[in-house]
Amino acid sequence: MELKAFIRDIPDFPQPGILFRDITPLLADKAALAAAIEALAEPFRKDGVEAVAAVEARGFIFGSAVARALGVGFVPIRKQGKLPWRTAQLSYDLEYGQDTIEVHRDAIRPGMRVLMIDDLLATGGTMVAACKLMETLEAKIVGLTFLVELTALAGRDRLGTYRIHSVIQY
Amino acid sequence: MELKAFIRDIPDFPQPGILFRDITPLLADKAALAAAIEALAEPFRKDGVEAVAAVEARGFIFGSAVARALGVGFVPIRKQGKLPWRTAQLSYDLEYGQDTIEVHRDAIRPGMRVLMIDDLLATGGTMVAACKLMETLEAKIVGLTFLVELTALAGRDRLGTYRIHSVIQY
Repeated sequence: MELKAFIRDIPDFPQPGILFRDITPLLADKAALAAAIEALAEPFRKDGVEAVAAVEARGFIFGSAVARALGVGFVPIRKQGKLPWRTAQLSYDLEYGQDTIEVHRDAIRPGMRVLMIDDLLATGGTMVAACKLMETLEAKIVGLTFLVELTALAGRDRLGTYRIHSVIQY
Repeated sequence: MELKAFIRDIPDFPQPGILFRDITPLLADKAALAAAIEALAEPFRKDGVEAVAAVEARGFIFGSAVARALGVGFVPIRKQGKLPWRTAQLSYDLEYGQDTIEVHRDAIRPGMRVLMIDDLLATGGTMVAACKLMETLEAKIVGLTFLVELTALAGRDRLGTYRIHSVIQY
């Protein structure tokens, strides 16, 4: 199935000069959605994955679905103040300002084999932070899986020490 | 499977006097996650559902997974300014202030049979708004499915005209 055919290009969003890759037509198509979930999960089926983790909000779109496909649990990583239990936190720089993400401390056991997921690999800034956060709890990052990779932004270089899979590349 | 056993009670979050029902232990457990996805989907298997829709961020946790379980597509409803294409919008009152949600206009055909999903039914304010938004595009709301229902907050009464299913009640 040619999943790229379900991605819609939208010029000048969210700002002039940016070409936005809109995945909502893919999500809306039952066959494309099923194929995307399988394509995200498939390369990691033999890697002993014990949990899938993702950062809100867009990471949640595929997080539980891929966890279900792999027969494992799902660990949500959230913006500061949303998780109610004891958390590990990590702050990281954005283009303008800073952001802080959190995960429940009891979501990860030392050595736990975690697959990280997001819909989009752009500069990789959020994913670098999410991986570091998981590693503060001694998670073993088995790999990173993305639906769309914007290769020109070189996120893959920033995440160089991890095994990276992307379903669609631009 | 007794899914309630995987919900953690956290007193005084996000503010004193509130008892927060934390679903993250359920998400983290592979069998509980799988059972929850099935329990959310199962009552609607024979209703000709054509799409599952959910509001970010927590609604996304189960949205695609339940869409996949039903063999249909997923329609994300987002906060204002996040969706790149032509949208329908709806503003609604919160306890303090207002919020606006959006959906892509081309995500819904008139008469399309949509199942709405969220992890939590509390007062029902966001879900009322989400249903109204879908109906501005002439969606047919087949039902609403929630993982957790806080019955004391009477969200069910505000959503009285819809068919409502909840997996766990308090």
